[in-house]
Amino acid sequence: MQTAQHVQQLRSSYIREILSAATATGMISLAGGLPAADLFPHALLQEAMIKVANNPQVFQYGETQGYAPLLEYLRTAYAVSKSHSILVTTGSQQGLDLIARTYINPGDHIALEAPSYLGALQVFTLAQASINPVAQTSGGPDLKSLQQLFESKPIKLFYAVPDFHNPTGISWSLQTRKDVAKLCQAFNVTLIEDAPYRELRFSGNTLPLVSSFCPEQAMVLRSSSKISAPGLRLGSVTGPETWINHLIRVKQTSDLHSSLPMQAVLLEILAHNNFEAHLNKVRRHYHLRYQTLAQAINKYIPTGVSFSEVEGGMFIWLQLTRGDSMAIAKAALEKGVAVVPSHVFYMDDNIQVPALRLNFSYCTPEKLTAAIQALASVI
Amino acid sequence: MQTAQHVQQLRSSYIREILSAATATGMISLAGGLPAADLFPHALLQEAMIKVANNPQVFQYGETQGYAPLLEYLRTAYAVSKSHSILVTTGSQQGLDLIARTYINPGDHIALEAPSYLGALQVFTLAQASINPVAQTSGGPDLKSLQQLFESKPIKLFYAVPDFHNPTGISWSLQTRKDVAKLCQAFNVTLIEDAPYRELRFSGNTLPLVSSFCPEQAMVLRSSSKISAPGLRLGSVTGPETWINHLIRVKQTSDLHSSLPMQAVLLEILAHNNFEAHLNKVRRHYHLRYQTLAQAINKYIPTGVSFSEVEGGMFIWLQLTRGDSMAIAKAALEKGVAVVPSHVFYMDDNIQVPALRLNFSYCTPEKLTAAIQALASVI
Repeated sequence: MQTAQHVQQLRSSYIREILSAATATGMISLAGGLPAADLFPHALLQEAMIKVANNPQVFQYGETQGYAPLLEYLRTAYAVSKSHSILVTTGSQQGLDLIARTYINPGDHIALEAPSYLGALQVFTLAQASINPVAQTSGGPDLKSLQQLFESKPIKLFYAVPDFHNPTGISWSLQTRKDVAKLCQAFNVTLIEDAPYRELRFSGNTLPLVSSFCPEQAMVLRSSSKISAPGLRLGSVTGPETWINHLIRVKQTSDLHSSLPMQAVLLEILAHNNFEAHLNKVRRHYHLRYQTLAQAINKYIPTGVSFSEVEGGMFIWLQLTRGDSMAIAKAALEKGVAVVPSHVFYMDDNIQVPALRLNFSYCTPEKLTAAIQALASVI
Repeated sequence: MQTAQHVQQLRSSYIREILSAATATGMISLAGGLPAADLFPHALLQEAMIKVANNPQVFQYGETQGYAPLLEYLRTAYAVSKSHSILVTTGSQQGLDLIARTYINPGDHIALEAPSYLGALQVFTLAQASINPVAQTSGGPDLKSLQQLFESKPIKLFYAVPDFHNPTGISWSLQTRKDVAKLCQAFNVTLIEDAPYRELRFSGNTLPLVSSFCPEQAMVLRSSSKISAPGLRLGSVTGPETWINHLIRVKQTSDLHSSLPMQAVLLEILAHNNFEAHLNKVRRHYHLRYQTLAQAINKYIPTGVSFSEVEGGMFIWLQLTRGDSMAIAKAALEKGVAVVPSHVFYMDDNIQVPALRLNFSYCTPEKLTAAIQALASVI
């Protein structure tokens, strides 16, 4: 049977393709966006699983929008206003996919920062959107380019990761947040603010969500994967109620609803007294891992590379002053180290920056140092 | 923000819309396709949840295709051949949605029995398929109409529920199964065999899957919702490996993968020594409930209605010899009984049969009798 035309455009994920190789014994993987399994809240998860096992209600079919007690909790936690609503999704990836399925006609123009989260490129490709990349500066998207784009094309939505961007780790400045919100309002562009790493700040000050400056013009995607555990596959979308209601109708057709026992488990974890301590522990360890990785780069790869400091998240974007990032990634894989070459994060070959995305959340500090020593030998 | 054009065609589910009303205190619901919560395998679920809580691996990201030990188990259980493959999905609903997203171009012709499973109508509407209904007889689809349709239009796939059809409860005869498989082969039509109720047979003999007569021409959707618990949201698709591989790519973009702890819980339940005894208990109780409902209809509504006997599943299709099914459903709701009028199961107003879908799995025998007494007063 022939696949549909829109599926034929879909590129497979380099990262998920090498997942087997990257998780093979002996391999040190800085490739995935995986949180540290040794830092999962195992005690909380166990307690929650046992408690939920005793709640017969969660094993029946439920409402598409989500498990009511979890919705109520998130509504307060995210300070969702009365005119806004929330939908629980199977990971924030599903939230993004639902937005594209619900709002994008083939050919509709959307904007995103380049380089971009690969999962977003796939979603918008499948939706047959016309994808317009905007270059990124150290403080967020290039505002002049963004305005020119909004002026020149009817952009329906702007997808952005303002906190600890994937793949670059960049966080938008306060001024950029305000300026982007203003531009979205001026040009009637919906902001899709993807915030999976927002809670993973280990230095500097938390800045307001971009959407807080244009709440009627935005939807926010949140993930539980980085603060609890990704295996649960839970995230959420918040935004104006009429918009969320359309997403609910499409989700109903997609999978009726997300796992109820998992939603109940997540609620137990988020509402637990020890959750904040767990999050602080994750932040401390990620800070340490980041510092270890940064120091190892400075020590073992003193020339030929550069990177911007990050204040949280999971990634360092290691720019190369010379060499082919794909060739280096392949050579590193042979030395037992998995990293992701920059080209997979771009739609447009012309604007690519030679770089490697290095994840620092997954591996222990010892392995991070060993990985950089190996990487140094191939750069 | 304006929704995409294909979403504007989407009808909301009558059943899910009245779910709140149907589950209100005092209401007797024969409306949903809900399994009996009091027959869930609670002991197995509890044991599985506690066991899985101690398995740290299932809380990390996993492979899109599914949790490897579950895939291995299902491959054996479903006797999946070497050239075929399996994908675990968030309910069989997601399997169907993935098939439509992966294989249907707008305007592609598909066929299905009328009346039809509402979730399938929604999926194919969202995919902008050209939907061709085929009338149903007591032994399955009308073969002459089906052949004429296959001759007259390039039908890409035929969606069918051969075991205890939703909404009619009809099971295809052995000859019909063979004949449909032959037609699919002759006209290069892919059969999508949806088998969520197959294990719920309480009388008569199990017949082979239709796809067993045309394995290279078919994909099979299976659900865990009716044999374990629907809250888990797990199902699967099996079929030729190349076809499944395309579904995996689209699922990766949709939600990366389905919940891993839930997949591990399902495996524990399916592989448990007591699972077969649990299934037999469900079958016994559903048989009793079906008999109770059928007897109550014969006793309290002796004229003006008719129904075909069923050998399993969850539904009786109560045909009305007079009256408006929508008006009767509304009047019943006011008397505290929820049922589904037939028009929601049809795309085409011209071929509708006035009927009510009555679910017998969810309510206790006492409530089923009370429901029919109330229904009798409005028919």
